[in-house]
Amino acid sequence: MNLKGKIREIPDFPEKGISFKDITTLLKDGDAFRYAIDKMASDIRDKEFDIIVGPESRGFIIGAPLAYAMQKGFIPVRKPGKLPGETLRYQYQLEYGTDQLEIHKDAIKKGQKVIVADDLLATGGTIHSTIQLVEQLGGEVVGCVFLIELTYLNGRERLKDYDIRTLIQY
Amino acid sequence: MNLKGKIREIPDFPEKGISFKDITTLLKDGDAFRYAIDKMASDIRDKEFDIIVGPESRGFIIGAPLAYAMQKGFIPVRKPGKLPGETLRYQYQLEYGTDQLEIHKDAIKKGQKVIVADDLLATGGTIHSTIQLVEQLGGEVVGCVFLIELTYLNGRERLKDYDIRTLIQY
Repeated sequence: MNLKGKIREIPDFPEKGISFKDITTLLKDGDAFRYAIDKMASDIRDKEFDIIVGPESRGFIIGAPLAYAMQKGFIPVRKPGKLPGETLRYQYQLEYGTDQLEIHKDAIKKGQKVIVADDLLATGGTIHSTIQLVEQLGGEVVGCVFLIELTYLNGRERLKDYDIRTLIQY
Repeated sequence: MNLKGKIREIPDFPEKGISFKDITTLLKDGDAFRYAIDKMASDIRDKEFDIIVGPESRGFIIGAPLAYAMQKGFIPVRKPGKLPGETLRYQYQLEYGTDQLEIHKDAIKKGQKVIVADDLLATGGTIHSTIQLVEQLGGEVVGCVFLIELTYLNGRERLKDYDIRTLIQY
């Protein structure tokens, strides 16, 4: 299936000069959505792992069905104040300012093998932060899987210590 | 499976006096997560529908795997400014102030049958707004499905014109 043909490009979003890859046109097509998740699942079928971690919010749309398909648990990484239990917080640098992500302190047991999933690998900032949270809890990131990779942003370089798999490349 | 036993109650979150139902303890258990989604899918198996709509963010964690499991498309309803295409916006009243939700204008075709999915039916405010967006686009809401229902908040009363199905009741 031509998944690229299911993704809509929106010019100048979220700011001028950026061509946004809109996956909602893929998501609303039941066959394409199913096919994409199944492909991502088969891409990591060789991995031994315990759980899938995905960052808010589009990481939920990819990570949760992927976890379901592989009968694994799903752990949400969220913006500050959203998770109700005790959390670990990680602050990271943006182009202008900073952002923060949180994970429940008891989300991962020491030594658990983790796959990190998200819709998009761009510069790798969000995923790098997600990995820090997982590792600070003693989890081992055995791979990262993305629906889309923007190769020209070199996210792979930033995540070069990890096994990165992506379904669609631009 | 005793799903209630997988849900953690957090006292005084997000504010004093509220006992928050934390589903992350269920989500991280691969068997429980699978079981819950399968049960929700079988609960709406009698329905004829085209697509599942879920509101940001926890609605994504439930709605997306449910759509995947039933080989349907998934449509995210989001907070303002998050969706990249042309959107329809709906403003609704909170206890203090207002909130807004958006849907892509081309997300639903006139006459499409829609299931609305979310993790929690509380007062029904978010789902009522989600339904308004779907109906303004010409979609027909044939049912709403939730993982958890807080029966004492009477969300069903607010949504009495719709077929409401919930997996776990408090």
